Amino acid sequence: MPDRYALLLAGGRGERFWPWSRPERPKQLLPLARGGASLLRATYDRALRVVGERDHIHVMTAMDLREACREEAPGARIHGEPVGRNTAPAIAAAAAAFFRDDAAFAVFPADHLIDDTESFARDLTRAFEVAERDDVLVTFGIWPAHPDTNFGYIRRGESIAPGAFRVRQFTEKPDLATATEWVRTGEYLWNAGIFVWRTRTFFEALRNGRPALAKAFEGLAGNPGAFEEQLGRILPGVESISVDYAVLEHASNVVVIEATFDWDDLGSWRAWARRQPRDPRGNVVFGDALAIESDNCVVVGEGAPAAAVGLRDMVVVGTRQGTLACPLDQTDRVRLVTGALRTKGTP
Amino acid sequence: MPDRYALLLAGGRGERFWPWSRPERPKQLLPLARGGASLLRATYDRALRVVGERDHIHVMTAMDLREACREEAPGARIHGEPVGRNTAPAIAAAAAAFFRDDAAFAVFPADHLIDDTESFARDLTRAFEVAERDDVLVTFGIWPAHPDTNFGYIRRGESIAPGAFRVRQFTEKPDLATATEWVRTGEYLWNAGIFVWRTRTFFEALRNGRPALAKAFEGLAGNPGAFEEQLGRILPGVESISVDYAVLEHASNVVVIEATFDWDDLGSWRAWARRQPRDPRGNVVFGDALAIESDNCVVVGEGAPAAAVGLRDMVVVGTRQGTLACPLDQTDRVRLVTGALRTKGTP
Repeated sequence: MPDRYALLLAGGRGERFWPWSRPERPKQLLPLARGGASLLRATYDRALRVVGERDHIHVMTAMDLREACREEAPGARIHGEPVGRNTAPAIAAAAAAFFRDDAAFAVFPADHLIDDTESFARDLTRAFEVAERDDVLVTFGIWPAHPDTNFGYIRRGESIAPGAFRVRQFTEKPDLATATEWVRTGEYLWNAGIFVWRTRTFFEALRNGRPALAKAFEGLAGNPGAFEEQLGRILPGVESISVDYAVLEHASNVVVIEATFDWDDLGSWRAWARRQPRDPRGNVVFGDALAIESDNCVVVGEGAPAAAVGLRDMVVVGTRQGTLACPLDQTDRVRLVTGALRTKGTP
Repeated sequence: MPDRYALLLAGGRGERFWPWSRPERPKQLLPLARGGASLLRATYDRALRVVGERDHIHVMTAMDLREACREEAPGARIHGEPVGRNTAPAIAAAAAAFFRDDAAFAVFPADHLIDDTESFARDLTRAFEVAERDDVLVTFGIWPAHPDTNFGYIRRGESIAPGAFRVRQFTEKPDLATATEWVRTGEYLWNAGIFVWRTRTFFEALRNGRPALAKAFEGLAGNPGAFEEQLGRILPGVESISVDYAVLEHASNVVVIEATFDWDDLGSWRAWARRQPRDPRGNVVFGDALAIESDNCVVVGEGAPAAAVGLRDMVVVGTRQGTLACPLDQTDRVRLVTGALRTKGTP
């Protein structure tokens, strides 16, 4: 097998699952995957199947999450970022320090849900083959189920193989009207946030899109020994930018593979609940929880019982970290809570 | 001043305020009184003003609540019941053991809210004077604000003094039609659960209503030294019955005094909320709590933040003991939660 690597991005502090998620246990560490595994653990398991060697899996995370990540990704190489600078700097740093110039690596967000591991392994292996053969930037597209304004979209161009296309346009989150139009045309796919490329192909594209960023991390090559210390010097001074903006929107050698696996970014309580078993009245009851005289609710209790009484279409969560009650269709507003708590000085 | 005593009944395990209340911190110990004092503390303060001496105040409570009660009623005499047998046995036991035969004592539920301490002291002193002069059973009546089926009702008869009446009928909770009719007539008052009588007058009435109960506690007289031990022998074998049923429904020498003080039995979250300050959108936000984009909600957080987001007319409570979300008009159903938790073996 060629020299292949996986880079798991596990630095998020996602607040949508507050108070279940919290700064020291963000979404990727919650037991949201099948069988109660963490999303990070499930991502690690999928990656291991694709790259074959535990120490070919690297995890970029926050300094204070390293221990937790080590438990979820045993044998992987865990790196702590002193500050978060979004995905482009994290990928550039790891690639420069750890991946040979002509090796290929895959980038996986650690907080997405994918159940169909067979198809995943097959699709990823195919992506590696394309990336290694054609020196292109390989992305994964999901057929849109609805016009979603929370995702990036990929406009496909000419077919280069069954289920693989050149990319005509790579864009971040559109407004609703645009998303609706795009979905209608049948030319657009959701960007799953999974990428495969050779190290040198990635850096070529980064030098084109964000030369300063590429330059900042070149010094890391060949000196992985003091990686975190070097990160501490470099990261605070670089632009915080996603790999989508820094690399993919500017590149012409982008390919999209239609994912044959299921995919969910679990962007909300509702999204998570869609995949959970329900009681006869449609409630998702998880952990130490009760739904009494309630319908279509999500009730999560951790550490002490949580009870929904006489409710409909609500999420009720109680953990040691806090309590949330909110209509299921308004969970986007949960960010207002974490914002308000930060203002008050509560973590 | 004549020899006067106060008996505080603090044995309740009220579940309506779950998860704020819990077995080891029932309603009377919650900070529901003005300024965040416990209801027991506020009751003790009112009683002290009426009877003058700390050690003339006795508190009947559960064995495991004695320490908590001692903190809230410093200097009072705290007695633990090995089992709960409702109010009649508790009153009979304390009266037989601690109160001289011709002394008068007042009985106070420890979990009611009364803010107007001036009027309270005046009304109670008057009740003591009537009880001592006429050897009658003095009760307190509250003018009904609405037909409430959770209260006992007192039907007044002839006036014996301004604001004081003979009682024609003393009844426990009526159905709604009956309550509505009673309120319409203007002859009925709510029973505040506060009583004043001489020890001997009480026992005469108890012997009339429940002779076996009176007999069971006669042996306690003159031997208060091993009170709790004696309770342990006697209480388990006696009938569990309220003083209303055991004494007042059968007696002909009952007097009702119209309370000039405010009174609330705080029977629900809504009742408690009525007396709390509200934010501009009508929310009661107590403790570590947030109401975001919400109206007319009650949000209580203890130990960690509790957040209501996008809600209306709901109660949201988070404590170390549990989490509750429920419409404000359905808080009676909270008992279903504590019942279900008992079934599951959670305290």
